Amino acid sequence: MNLQNELLSVIKDVPDFPKKGVIFKDINPLFKDPQLMKKVTAQMAEFAKLTNIQHIVGIESRGFFFGMPLALELNLPFIAARKKGKLPGEVVSESYALEYGTDSIEIQKNSLLKGQRYLIVDDIIATGGTANAAAKIIQNSGGIVSGFTFLIELTFLNGCETLLKTTPHVQIQSLIKV
Amino acid sequence: MNLQNELLSVIKDVPDFPKKGVIFKDINPLFKDPQLMKKVTAQMAEFAKLTNIQHIVGIESRGFFFGMPLALELNLPFIAARKKGKLPGEVVSESYALEYGTDSIEIQKNSLLKGQRYLIVDDIIATGGTANAAAKIIQNSGGIVSGFTFLIELTFLNGCETLLKTTPHVQIQSLIKV
Repeated sequence: MNLQNELLSVIKDVPDFPKKGVIFKDINPLFKDPQLMKKVTAQMAEFAKLTNIQHIVGIESRGFFFGMPLALELNLPFIAARKKGKLPGEVVSESYALEYGTDSIEIQKNSLLKGQRYLIVDDIIATGGTANAAAKIIQNSGGIVSGFTFLIELTFLNGCETLLKTTPHVQIQSLIKV
Repeated sequence: MNLQNELLSVIKDVPDFPKKGVIFKDINPLFKDPQLMKKVTAQMAEFAKLTNIQHIVGIESRGFFFGMPLALELNLPFIAARKKGKLPGEVVSESYALEYGTDSIEIQKNSLLKGQRYLIVDDIIATGGTANAAAKIIQNSGGIVSGFTFLIELTFLNGCETLLKTTPHVQIQSLIKV
């Protein structure tokens, strides 16, 4: 079985979560399979090496599950992009639209280095709002967003188009497209 | 330099975060040092082997940074203990006291197996409320809490005493005591 089919066999659709009408992708069964998690990390690492990155940025909180093992695999610094108010010290924030209202994401200022190359990691790309906000923080601070990697891409929401508007020549990896 | 001193040299005290009077331990600099993170994982793995565990439980959200690499190192399933409403499907909840009011933590029911041995991982033990709630979920479901591992123990808050009331003979590891 190839990796894509292996992943599709463990990730479960949960209807009406977190609210009616939404089909939630439950990736918790994947976390219980360390061999499969290692294959995911290896695939992400292969992609990361192509993009010559120097820093891994994981998006709160399911991006942490993939970003930290990836950073350790590649021997690179891991940076957490967290929800408002979670990171101490000086932070750079960027807001993004929700269905109703806005939310924002933050990165510690001392992790944002001019001319350095960053890879942004999350479990899923839907509309791309959060990943795009993380990319804007890095770009506005003089860093280079070299790539994005996602476990799952919900293609019908066109999130990658949003990312390509902010970072036109960026490389995007999605292990599964649904 | 031994591991404890290495950790103390990178973890930064941030006064008055998240609110006045609290000194926050900023562990984000540790995440930017993959070699040091690997030493932390190795030390936790050594302890985990002594306690014969079969499952790693990481507590939202900073427990995820240590729990997932540890699970991959040991080739064991990783289970996320998350804040209320984050996990889909059937969950088991347990509430714990905050300074004002209560909060609760949840684990997916299908991750709780009778007679199996669990290790609970978090970045810091303060009063022990969250880790203790996670332990109660496991115990009440018929599982065995074999150990706890923390990066930092705030000894003056006596969190370990709270844990030992729920799980009297449990092994507890803290890499740094302050």
